[in-house]
Amino acid sequence: MSTPGDARRGSILAITGGVGGAKLALGLADELPDSELHLLVNTGDDFRHLGMHISPDIDTLLYTLSGRSNQSVGWGLEGESWNAMNALEQLGGETWFRLGDKDIATHLWRTQALAEGNGFLEVVDSLAQRMGIGCKIYAMSADPVRTTVCTDEGELPFQHYFVRRQCQPAVTGFRFEGIESARPNPAIMEMLQHAPPAAVVICPSNPFVSVDPVLQIPGMWQALKACSAPVIAVSPIVAGMAIKGPAAKMMEGLHMPVSALAVARYYSERYPGLLSGFIIDDSDATLESDIRETGMNVAIGNTVMHSRGDKRKLAQFVLQMAGAS
Amino acid sequence: MSTPGDARRGSILAITGGVGGAKLALGLADELPDSELHLLVNTGDDFRHLGMHISPDIDTLLYTLSGRSNQSVGWGLEGESWNAMNALEQLGGETWFRLGDKDIATHLWRTQALAEGNGFLEVVDSLAQRMGIGCKIYAMSADPVRTTVCTDEGELPFQHYFVRRQCQPAVTGFRFEGIESARPNPAIMEMLQHAPPAAVVICPSNPFVSVDPVLQIPGMWQALKACSAPVIAVSPIVAGMAIKGPAAKMMEGLHMPVSALAVARYYSERYPGLLSGFIIDDSDATLESDIRETGMNVAIGNTVMHSRGDKRKLAQFVLQMAGAS
Repeated sequence: MSTPGDARRGSILAITGGVGGAKLALGLADELPDSELHLLVNTGDDFRHLGMHISPDIDTLLYTLSGRSNQSVGWGLEGESWNAMNALEQLGGETWFRLGDKDIATHLWRTQALAEGNGFLEVVDSLAQRMGIGCKIYAMSADPVRTTVCTDEGELPFQHYFVRRQCQPAVTGFRFEGIESARPNPAIMEMLQHAPPAAVVICPSNPFVSVDPVLQIPGMWQALKACSAPVIAVSPIVAGMAIKGPAAKMMEGLHMPVSALAVARYYSERYPGLLSGFIIDDSDATLESDIRETGMNVAIGNTVMHSRGDKRKLAQFVLQMAGAS
Repeated sequence: MSTPGDARRGSILAITGGVGGAKLALGLADELPDSELHLLVNTGDDFRHLGMHISPDIDTLLYTLSGRSNQSVGWGLEGESWNAMNALEQLGGETWFRLGDKDIATHLWRTQALAEGNGFLEVVDSLAQRMGIGCKIYAMSADPVRTTVCTDEGELPFQHYFVRRQCQPAVTGFRFEGIESARPNPAIMEMLQHAPPAAVVICPSNPFVSVDPVLQIPGMWQALKACSAPVIAVSPIVAGMAIKGPAAKMMEGLHMPVSALAVARYYSERYPGLLSGFIIDDSDATLESDIRETGMNVAIGNTVMHSRGDKRKLAQFVLQMAGAS
């Protein structure tokens, strides 16, 4: 039943990267009927490794939404085994990107499906279905976009910066290779034009390497802005820290203050007029008026998601704000 | 120390496929110093599967010679786990070719090494070294040759015939795709021309799909014939049965009698003057004079290798025959 106090007048489109965003995506999945949740996912982190096509953010979504993600480490599958990795180590192979045995099956399946000529978007969709996921998962583009991190040690492919070098090089910027010619997922463009969602949610994912690659696909953010739905972002920075991942470290490298306000300003400068609402954590309440100056509404609540209940509550909070917009 | 009664006046070149041949290869490895054993291996069974380059015969050699092969099933690694395969099965992926978790590491390593631009021959050599194998393993060619089995159900790539269809379709012939333009391993050609081995051994491998692909690489069998070494084959057919694999079934399909004599005739007609000696099992002693009519010497002994001691004894027997040739 729709009520005036939430956004359930239709479907929700949530833009997400990996771990941090996947938490809110799970909350939204718990709160919404399957048919009303659409997840638009960053594939800038994708890479080819050991001959396999690996889609880290897509996989985190798949594993999280199918209830099989490893909660304690924040990536990969629960109850994973490492026999292939250990054997690869004995061969002197590359083991810096830890691939569990069950996880490898996902990559082999995807690689085979792509090698057989299936489209990338269909392969993502099929994997979600095969894992029993009810809501829709959309890769941002069928075309390869590869996030490159510019650092004081030169340019590094994202996974080399993130996993291999463990975010140690100082960040000076980002490049999304191939983005100029990447086409946005046509199903998303179709939705925005002809059946716009009740709200667009930007999950608390990394603004630079999870959200930007999605929004900067040519035509994407403009289409989001042009559609009738309010766009609500949840700050990935809480009390001057990133809940998960290298966002805070990147902001330091970019000489930005590490705060929810800086994220709000970043989004409003880069995507003028896109965001109508911004959700910050209780601990950042003092930033409210400064954020309002960017022209967005602000809602304050608990954005730190530990339990599954926390995720669902934040999802409810986001939907309420979207409904009031 | 060299004695007149065996072939240890220099090195041994053994031509082998997978399981059956690998047994004698292990016997030879036990009997000879590392530096004197050279194994020339069929790669016609190689295929790309789940995005990985798989070399079944090479891998059987690698696993056998590094003492890690699964003796009871005859393929793969001992103490293998199947977590990736089980996860792939849950995804509805292709699991007809059973890949253990540790085995997958070999394929990932090889696929990555090839993707990085390393040559196939160097990759085979490097894998052998990484597995601590002392003798040399040579792929028959750097160029892809793909064995296709012609059957009453049409043409099937070898692994589809062998594993997926479990040798059920009736065989009418074989085709080695790409063999016309495949170049023999240059190290082998160099050896045959400038430092010929004391003997060439054709292991008890499948004549049609293990030995033929090697010998039919343009220039290969002619170079073997032209070199000074005696060429000794061990019959893969014992008492009208194939010890391992589909050789007997294939002979039936080709309307050949299933016997060591038929194998000897097949080799002598296909490769006139190549073989100087043929080793048959005690149980086939009555075939001796008929085989001699093909122009080969015949030695009779126990060719059924159950124990490691059996393998070594057959290796000794082969070396003795080669030395007497």
